[in-house]
Amino acid sequence: MDFRIARLSRDLEPALKEKIGQKTKPIGALGVLESLALQMGLIQNTLTPRLHNPVIVVFAADHGITDENISPYPRAVTAQMVRNFLSGGAAINVLARQTGIALKIVDAGVDDDFFHVDALIDAKVARGTRNFVLEPAMTASECEQAIAKGAGIAEEIARSESTVIGFGDMGIGNTSSAAILMSFLCNAPLEHCVGSGSGLDAPGLKHKVAVLEQAVRRVRLPDRAAVHLGPLELLQEFGGFEIAMICGAMLQAAAHRLIVLVDGFIATAALLVATRLNEHVLDYCVFSHRSEERGHRSMLEYLGAEPLLDLRLRLGEGTGAALAYPIVAAAVAFMNDMASFADAGVSGKKA
Amino acid sequence: MDFRIARLSRDLEPALKEKIGQKTKPIGALGVLESLALQMGLIQNTLTPRLHNPVIVVFAADHGITDENISPYPRAVTAQMVRNFLSGGAAINVLARQTGIALKIVDAGVDDDFFHVDALIDAKVARGTRNFVLEPAMTASECEQAIAKGAGIAEEIARSESTVIGFGDMGIGNTSSAAILMSFLCNAPLEHCVGSGSGLDAPGLKHKVAVLEQAVRRVRLPDRAAVHLGPLELLQEFGGFEIAMICGAMLQAAAHRLIVLVDGFIATAALLVATRLNEHVLDYCVFSHRSEERGHRSMLEYLGAEPLLDLRLRLGEGTGAALAYPIVAAAVAFMNDMASFADAGVSGKKA
Repeated sequence: MDFRIARLSRDLEPALKEKIGQKTKPIGALGVLESLALQMGLIQNTLTPRLHNPVIVVFAADHGITDENISPYPRAVTAQMVRNFLSGGAAINVLARQTGIALKIVDAGVDDDFFHVDALIDAKVARGTRNFVLEPAMTASECEQAIAKGAGIAEEIARSESTVIGFGDMGIGNTSSAAILMSFLCNAPLEHCVGSGSGLDAPGLKHKVAVLEQAVRRVRLPDRAAVHLGPLELLQEFGGFEIAMICGAMLQAAAHRLIVLVDGFIATAALLVATRLNEHVLDYCVFSHRSEERGHRSMLEYLGAEPLLDLRLRLGEGTGAALAYPIVAAAVAFMNDMASFADAGVSGKKA
Repeated sequence: MDFRIARLSRDLEPALKEKIGQKTKPIGALGVLESLALQMGLIQNTLTPRLHNPVIVVFAADHGITDENISPYPRAVTAQMVRNFLSGGAAINVLARQTGIALKIVDAGVDDDFFHVDALIDAKVARGTRNFVLEPAMTASECEQAIAKGAGIAEEIARSESTVIGFGDMGIGNTSSAAILMSFLCNAPLEHCVGSGSGLDAPGLKHKVAVLEQAVRRVRLPDRAAVHLGPLELLQEFGGFEIAMICGAMLQAAAHRLIVLVDGFIATAALLVATRLNEHVLDYCVFSHRSEERGHRSMLEYLGAEPLLDLRLRLGEGTGAALAYPIVAAAVAFMNDMASFADAGVSGKKA
């Protein structure tokens, strides 16, 4: 899989900074909004960046690791939440509606059948991954399929003239996958990467760490030395389908020069994998929030990312992306609609 | 001036928490949105809080202290920015439009005349305060007038069935007033309260600190002992008109059970004064952001406040309040529109 992502040209940077500096406000006074406006100008290679048809795509999948009792919620909740998304009652529905963001729900590998549901994108790879304590979560072919399907979905969204796309997740058990991916990709001790997910208590968390340590031991060499696994091997070993699909979708979105809104722990784990496939994807990313899930702070630091929000969210679904979107829109709005000192006849700094 | 602000009753708290807990998400997973929803339910004393007719009011005034060269911008910028507000080109215009917030501009004491401008609320007390290095910024009567006019403006907004009101400021020199107010009210060393405002360089900042130290010495007793000044005396000594007006408006807004969006350094300084007049005002406040202006972090800590945003803004005008508003709206939206576990047929936690 080869994603051709253009490294951002810096050619327009001086002109963008000049335009931002001429707005009727002290230099730098809009803080992060100014750096966002600059980034979006560079992504769209224009002094007048625009946001069209914002979309959030929620990828849902089940996880074999739920056999190991690592979540306080039963596996069936994944499918139940998909139905909740489809009927408009989940948090992401409410937040996307409020902000004017279109929402797409993808069955990336849910352990249930959804018949005749137009609103659902069927990209099911299988009815959940395998239990990665015992065997690889997916086959190499399933992994490629998931990435390709994710890329295809982003492709279609790019064709519909969207310029900004956020990614969300739903999958009971998926913080287990994400934690192991993080541990390998950030070279961080597993216990720094494993959090309480949807709300494990202390003994539950201890059990989850033990289960994930066991899974990691499975891929160790016979002499117990650490192994090096490439990004695709990691996805294959530890899943999940939604993570692989988000990874493919992010890469394709960047290839189409879309602004990519990165949600929380799961989406950032997918991005970690994506950066190993093509590091330029990062140029297109806006980090929407810092999740309460343990590990997310270090993940963001590893990526050198400064998120827009820190609201102690730990829900996934793309809720952080939806909440951050108005800030992105504000950056575009000030860039296009604010008067300059000259326009408004306002004096600049004293000489 | 007597503001009758009801202490929030906690009677509905259990029912509000129950409702929040039944939403289809792990308990607490919406983080700060959940505490916001609780606060708004308590303010409006209902399980279904609503936001009607959001308004941001920008109070503009001039400051005699600009004689001391404490700002990098000339005093004339206050009036020029008022005209910029009236023609819709300033940052707050753009952000308020984008978010569907009505904007009101108040001449609290600008050193200019604005003729026949319907969009401007004329509440001018005088054409700027006096230079508080030499004499009190305002008379006791001017101070009372400013507070009363602010209260009157909030009163009118409450009558127009708004349920949420944000306060912004414009006034070259006003971080000097706010820094001295903070120093007295938080009992903090002046140099921790004085920041670079609209962008002073290091020598400029040093000069500003020296000027403000001189101003503080003016009110010292002959034996150089520290003086105790009450909140109204402080406003009178160090101004400004927009700060006094915001203070009065916040108190009256709380008296009418409005949700008060607190902007940055200037608005929070006004709130510091307001809390000394009636501490219950705090129950109605939502802190929108942490400003880059030195001192704001400590001010917020002093008030025990956790702001929603930290975007390195230092612009004033209510821009932080406008940017935070969608988060407040999101809290109300999830409270009213999200499905419960029972509604959606989603399983709860395992037993």
